Amino acid sequence: MTQRLIIRNGLFAQLQEGLAQTTIKGYMVVEQDRIVYIGETLPEVYEQGEVEYIDGKGLFFMPGLINTHGHAAMSLLRGYGDDMVLQSWLQEKMWPMEAKFTGNDVYWGTALSVIEMLKGGTTLFVDMYDHMDQVAKVSEESGIRAALMRGAIGLCSEDVQRMKLNEAVQFAKDWNGQANGRITTLLAPHAPYTCPPAFIEKFVEAAHELDLMLHTHMSETAAEVEQNVKEYGLRPVAHLEKLGLFSRPSFIAHGVHLNDEEIATLAKHNVGVSHNPGSNLKLASGVARVVDLQRAGVVVSLGTDGAASNNNLDMFEEMRLAALIHKGVSGDPTAVPAADAMRMATVNGARTLHMNDVGLLQVGMKADFIAVDIDQPHLYPHTDLVSHMVYSASAKDVQHVWVDGNQVVKNGECLTMDEERIKHEAEQCFRNLLER
Amino acid sequence: MTQRLIIRNGLFAQLQEGLAQTTIKGYMVVEQDRIVYIGETLPEVYEQGEVEYIDGKGLFFMPGLINTHGHAAMSLLRGYGDDMVLQSWLQEKMWPMEAKFTGNDVYWGTALSVIEMLKGGTTLFVDMYDHMDQVAKVSEESGIRAALMRGAIGLCSEDVQRMKLNEAVQFAKDWNGQANGRITTLLAPHAPYTCPPAFIEKFVEAAHELDLMLHTHMSETAAEVEQNVKEYGLRPVAHLEKLGLFSRPSFIAHGVHLNDEEIATLAKHNVGVSHNPGSNLKLASGVARVVDLQRAGVVVSLGTDGAASNNNLDMFEEMRLAALIHKGVSGDPTAVPAADAMRMATVNGARTLHMNDVGLLQVGMKADFIAVDIDQPHLYPHTDLVSHMVYSASAKDVQHVWVDGNQVVKNGECLTMDEERIKHEAEQCFRNLLER
Repeated sequence: MTQRLIIRNGLFAQLQEGLAQTTIKGYMVVEQDRIVYIGETLPEVYEQGEVEYIDGKGLFFMPGLINTHGHAAMSLLRGYGDDMVLQSWLQEKMWPMEAKFTGNDVYWGTALSVIEMLKGGTTLFVDMYDHMDQVAKVSEESGIRAALMRGAIGLCSEDVQRMKLNEAVQFAKDWNGQANGRITTLLAPHAPYTCPPAFIEKFVEAAHELDLMLHTHMSETAAEVEQNVKEYGLRPVAHLEKLGLFSRPSFIAHGVHLNDEEIATLAKHNVGVSHNPGSNLKLASGVARVVDLQRAGVVVSLGTDGAASNNNLDMFEEMRLAALIHKGVSGDPTAVPAADAMRMATVNGARTLHMNDVGLLQVGMKADFIAVDIDQPHLYPHTDLVSHMVYSASAKDVQHVWVDGNQVVKNGECLTMDEERIKHEAEQCFRNLLER
Repeated sequence: MTQRLIIRNGLFAQLQEGLAQTTIKGYMVVEQDRIVYIGETLPEVYEQGEVEYIDGKGLFFMPGLINTHGHAAMSLLRGYGDDMVLQSWLQEKMWPMEAKFTGNDVYWGTALSVIEMLKGGTTLFVDMYDHMDQVAKVSEESGIRAALMRGAIGLCSEDVQRMKLNEAVQFAKDWNGQANGRITTLLAPHAPYTCPPAFIEKFVEAAHELDLMLHTHMSETAAEVEQNVKEYGLRPVAHLEKLGLFSRPSFIAHGVHLNDEEIATLAKHNVGVSHNPGSNLKLASGVARVVDLQRAGVVVSLGTDGAASNNNLDMFEEMRLAALIHKGVSGDPTAVPAADAMRMATVNGARTLHMNDVGLLQVGMKADFIAVDIDQPHLYPHTDLVSHMVYSASAKDVQHVWVDGNQVVKNGECLTMDEERIKHEAEQCFRNLLER
């Protein structure tokens, strides 16, 4: 890490609400892990002392992308089962393979995902899985920022439930604030349909005790909502509200099937929704009511979900899907404009995680930012670069990535991870899983 | 062009209907402009004489992508107007700028699109625009295969109508079969709502006389269908049928708003549909009934439409959108499986254009094919490569491209066009259009 980094002649995304312009041209100064200046001219004081300069020509700088829902290790199952009915996909393909996952599989699967995410401009990812120590280890080594939790399915004996809760709590205690503060931990009962009410309550209790956020899957499919009503006499939002989940800072993944009352309840408790358009389309879960959620004041962010149901971790694609499908389905071409989609993938991710120092290029923020190569045919002419990022760009256009002030991707190459080794080991893990 | 090209150790897409496997591993041999062999072993005879070898390791070979609807020169307006209501977008943004387009603008706008398409694996594109001599010139110079037509809007005096028809016919005569047979010409009344019936009939007559295919926009929006009924007492399909358009080999773009009867009529006349999912979503036109069209036997191919309403020309993205949205909207995760989406982007494009020697990797076909770099994190593990192409890859993953046996893209660089000059001139054209 240089003492001071100055980007000159750069174009910078400005996504703060209410600004007249979404880009400014000029300078950005980073000291240690923070953005200390951004503006059209450069005050002389910053040129004193040890300085590393970067020429911003041909680049567009924007906040690092924030992926608010996923299961990184599932990249080992990318393309292993597609175009199938959800229950067959889970029962015949995913669950039997996942049951065989060891810590080693989770390590290499996560590494495969993290290198894809870093190279594609994701600087902060949320992960809910098993063997979370391995996920934390990859996060620490790679330099990415991470919000991690052991996802616990409670369809098991009370003994096993207790073991899982203890594991989740222990992981949360061990890793919170680790990796120079880049790792945040949460608690996560997997979903209302996979966790008995008493089990969920235990997580709520622990979250209060440890002052942690909660995250869970909710209302991804219509069937699961129906089942909730049948089993507990309540729709999932009222059910989780009753169990106290929303008494903690919390956010849910999917939220595809919500009625007006449920949207109002989520807004009232400031519960964020991680919108996963790619996964929801691929699994035919439906189209979330994103416009209505936003109108009600719910913070909507974007997630890729696991690579087995996406099948990549390209947050540019999620931005684009969010901007496109809500127009096409509602018939309103002004729905989810480009800057809104980019906010979902950046600052809204930060707000979802109750982090107030990432997600924007702004003085005081952590230096989590990316540079996109705009000197390419598909990004000409240079009319509106925020629009180009949302409607035309892809993960492959990312040139440089910084997290916490450290450059982790340079000219498209990851500086912190061994790509050749990761590709080899991930392929091996998959082959071994097939044979085990 | 070498006498003979042999790809060894390659993985090849096999999209012929009814095959058990969608990929084979082995060898492909190209002589001049044709595929002469494909198989698991290499017969000795091919190793005699002058041979260029390519090592297929880390590459996936598939047919060149076929983009069946677009307006290449509109890339000059990429990002110039987004997230707007269709009529304001057209009247305030697109039409005033397009009215100022000169031949020079069309040349550089088309060049910008063609280099994006070639680099992204598109080897054949359909283009409907004005100043078509310029589009043909770019096609000839770049080495791409093209199906071109002057799109004629008939909302003008009979004199101007006559001039446009003559221009369209002259262009079609001048360029059909040119560029070593890479250019095919068609005739194209723009749309039922922009062309009076008598004007459309003149195009049908000319198409019969010159033995050319017809192409038109149809039923893109609900409003235009309503207007057709109000004005002519018929929905667009019956209207065009009555005017004789389907008496010629023909295909339509969009076809978003179709009833069952219309779908049956299209099937009866073997009229192809160019499905443009990205554009239809962005302009909030709706979601075409692709599954129903295919079930009825209509050939559905994929198009990007112009870059102003997409906003890129990435056919991998169109494949992915086609595979995703029809699942999400129908609730059926088995709708449009990966191999089907890839067929839409390749062999179905060929069938739409009544070309029987492109669109498949098969003996006797023209050597229009591409190699995708699969040695990248987001394409591991190597489970199902057809799935990876549809659900995980993007235009940027294309490594090499051949058209008509000639390599036009090598290691991601276009060999036939001057990329730096094109980017510069396209930017200049846009700046000049703003000032004119």
